[in-house]
Amino acid sequence: MGALDEGRFTGEFENEMKLGFGCGFCGLLEVEVEDSETSVIEGAVKVLLQGLGEDFNRDGLKKTPLRVAKALIDGTRGYRQQVNDIVQGALFPEAGVGSGIGHAGGVGGLVVVRGIDLFSYCESCLLPFKVQCHVGYIPSKQQVVGLSKLSRVADVFAKRLQNPQRLADEVCSALYESIRPSGVAVALQCWHIQFPSDLETSDSNHIAQDMDGWASTSVFSGLGLFKDKACDVWSDFLALVKFKGAIALDRKRASSWCPSQAVVMPECNGHGLTSLPNPITESNLRILAKLGATHSTMIAAVTLILRALGEDPLRKELVNTPRHFVKWLMKFKRSTLEMKGNGFHYGSEVPNPNCIIKESGESERVRMRSELNLPFWSQCEHHLLPFHGVVHVSYYMVEEAEALDRSSLQTIVHFHACKLQVQERLTKQIAESVNTVSGGGGVMVVVEASHICMISRGIEKIGSSTATIAVLGQFASNPLAKAMFLQMISIRTS
Amino acid sequence: MGALDEGRFTGEFENEMKLGFGCGFCGLLEVEVEDSETSVIEGAVKVLLQGLGEDFNRDGLKKTPLRVAKALIDGTRGYRQQVNDIVQGALFPEAGVGSGIGHAGGVGGLVVVRGIDLFSYCESCLLPFKVQCHVGYIPSKQQVVGLSKLSRVADVFAKRLQNPQRLADEVCSALYESIRPSGVAVALQCWHIQFPSDLETSDSNHIAQDMDGWASTSVFSGLGLFKDKACDVWSDFLALVKFKGAIALDRKRASSWCPSQAVVMPECNGHGLTSLPNPITESNLRILAKLGATHSTMIAAVTLILRALGEDPLRKELVNTPRHFVKWLMKFKRSTLEMKGNGFHYGSEVPNPNCIIKESGESERVRMRSELNLPFWSQCEHHLLPFHGVVHVSYYMVEEAEALDRSSLQTIVHFHACKLQVQERLTKQIAESVNTVSGGGGVMVVVEASHICMISRGIEKIGSSTATIAVLGQFASNPLAKAMFLQMISIRTS
Repeated sequence: MGALDEGRFTGEFENEMKLGFGCGFCGLLEVEVEDSETSVIEGAVKVLLQGLGEDFNRDGLKKTPLRVAKALIDGTRGYRQQVNDIVQGALFPEAGVGSGIGHAGGVGGLVVVRGIDLFSYCESCLLPFKVQCHVGYIPSKQQVVGLSKLSRVADVFAKRLQNPQRLADEVCSALYESIRPSGVAVALQCWHIQFPSDLETSDSNHIAQDMDGWASTSVFSGLGLFKDKACDVWSDFLALVKFKGAIALDRKRASSWCPSQAVVMPECNGHGLTSLPNPITESNLRILAKLGATHSTMIAAVTLILRALGEDPLRKELVNTPRHFVKWLMKFKRSTLEMKGNGFHYGSEVPNPNCIIKESGESERVRMRSELNLPFWSQCEHHLLPFHGVVHVSYYMVEEAEALDRSSLQTIVHFHACKLQVQERLTKQIAESVNTVSGGGGVMVVVEASHICMISRGIEKIGSSTATIAVLGQFASNPLAKAMFLQMISIRTS
Repeated sequence: MGALDEGRFTGEFENEMKLGFGCGFCGLLEVEVEDSETSVIEGAVKVLLQGLGEDFNRDGLKKTPLRVAKALIDGTRGYRQQVNDIVQGALFPEAGVGSGIGHAGGVGGLVVVRGIDLFSYCESCLLPFKVQCHVGYIPSKQQVVGLSKLSRVADVFAKRLQNPQRLADEVCSALYESIRPSGVAVALQCWHIQFPSDLETSDSNHIAQDMDGWASTSVFSGLGLFKDKACDVWSDFLALVKFKGAIALDRKRASSWCPSQAVVMPECNGHGLTSLPNPITESNLRILAKLGATHSTMIAAVTLILRALGEDPLRKELVNTPRHFVKWLMKFKRSTLEMKGNGFHYGSEVPNPNCIIKESGESERVRMRSELNLPFWSQCEHHLLPFHGVVHVSYYMVEEAEALDRSSLQTIVHFHACKLQVQERLTKQIAESVNTVSGGGGVMVVVEASHICMISRGIEKIGSSTATIAVLGQFASNPLAKAMFLQMISIRTS
């Protein structure tokens, strides 16, 4: 638990808040954020780690508070940026066609920048959400703006706590005010990660492969000639956005798209294992500590983070945010439960279509079993941000054992994923657990994951993904078995 | 031409080089680049603009020298970064499985980060090239590295003048030295933009739609356990990279992948129009000024840029770079030629499959003609970086006129694209030219383009693209005609 006295800690926060805070820095461009904000957030993150049952002095977590503080401050840098500073130097005189004969260039010719990838933070739960942004404007006064500025302005508002509709409206009006064109249109497609409890009821293969598991919405905003969404220019704009292959846009509002609002989440009951799937029962697990008093402390810590970022925690959209974020975090509460191999549901006799049997070698024929695409969500312990993806498992059965059914393997995956983790360790732990419950004949595990920390933080490598391998027993000594399983994954998941 | 005395200018550069330069700053992390480097590059860019027949004091170009200098310095920031500073704080102890029983976690369990999007600069021609980078390593000593660091280290070497194989080798050995793992593997897929002269011989529809027109190559580098590319771990690595959907990797070297080396380019002959397609003849054009003496000055200017970036212009891979870059630039030399409408080839009587005839209204039935997907390459005047894409044209024929054939329209597109441009103006100019040669019945032009400046500079919005519209005559007054053409584009290009 570490050596922290919670009362003292909270007191220190309050002093720092009084000393270090004001709203004065919000209006300045790229002002160096004062150390006091960073240290407030660092302290708050330590409280959160404690609440998760973690020792924030252990190696993997030592720098997590600082990393999280830096990421949050950078991720909300939009509060300290001014649109006019971005646009001012990038307005270029550009003659349009003469009035009366048509529209082009600097007069009335629609300009659309499509497919701008952004990341923003959900004001309802503090988790990042992905945005694909399309901006159109109709120049006036023989002036066009540098194309990259549309993207930069959008990013200023994305880097704040947002919901999709407000983000669209703010980008739209900022461009309208700064460029002074005849009209501005903004269309956003937004994707929000789901909470693990939502995933349980869905078809897991489906989610794992096409990411339909994300909550998504499309929102629109228009000013000037785009004020009326039924007018011709909106059709032109949407036609240009669509024929680039963007998905069909509907015009529903995104008032409650965040899963923290839509889903009734179970109250935190201290064991943090409510997200485990059905087959696991409490008899399989020894429940650790009650969450108890630290819950409200965690909520207070998130409130302090909001204030440190320059936000007003009493703004009505933010009032429940600390509670939502803590509920999300508690899904990854550390458990010291031991999993007992003998308590598992073993498989039915019905052949599982996901079970592939090795074809060569009669003696091994019935002994190598595989399950592909077991979905998981986990929480990166270095950044307190989710990573998620699929697990592929192959194992040798010992002679007297029955095959593990898919839900048993899914239980093992969830058990190890639902805590602060790193992908390498998760891979190893799943392999070791499967090896134990399957009789120790040898296991190979491949984990493929997208890390939100890789796409929402500084480097923003949106298309990247990570794969890890663990091999035990016969898989370690038999390169052919390993190659066969990799090939099977390649064929079955492409 | 501006008021520059070239001799004086070159002299000033040389003084600044003597005063402001040393190789001392190369080894420091994130050192502020001295103003003198920026102003050397600014001056060199002014020489290049002059050589292109441009007045660098005109509105669109005023800030181009500074923008180019900042972009080049930022794009080569890797010379001033150290790998150890990036990796040092991000090595985490992580227990692996016990030796003898398998590989996972911190011992021998392969970790692969796939699909890292990067941009680098080609040392052979100074143009940016796109990289998709896959990195794998096998941890040792119970230590793993933060996943984002693999991406950050790769970026250090991408942000230098490179060729693909050296980039792969440098990333590989830097990771091997800094992480000290059991092995490192790097696979890069690289795409280089082609030069306009290469595009002429290809099927233009094909290029426009799937970007196969980019020169591409795949390169590999391995150290430690990956030193032998025939070993099992290479197969594992490639299997993991492949089953994410990456294209098949072959192992050819990329010694001469840059189009500046592969293609024998015509000598600069002063008119800068060698990239125009066949149907245009010199009789259609009045040739402007000879390039003359400024050619060698331009080459000297690029040499100064290389030195200002901290490179050695005498390094053998760089010796021809200034010449290559100037040849590329000269493809976009400003021409004051007038296009004469009456000199054009008019269309054959054979129905063109790309010509779509309006279906409603007998009187307009034979009068509205369209050509889709006319490819173009142009040069952004704000950043001196290419933008490229396709042009869609629709026009009303006047009664006595014949249809313009595709190659005539392509000639008009090339004529306006092959200079320093902005997309809005290009769209307008194409519309006005087509309107003139087609008899003034009305024209609509849609330009869809990717801007290298949007993806290789600071904001790095790789998936973004820009669409612009110009409408003249009947298209301006008839929303239905406009909507129909947009719908046609949507259907025919999706």
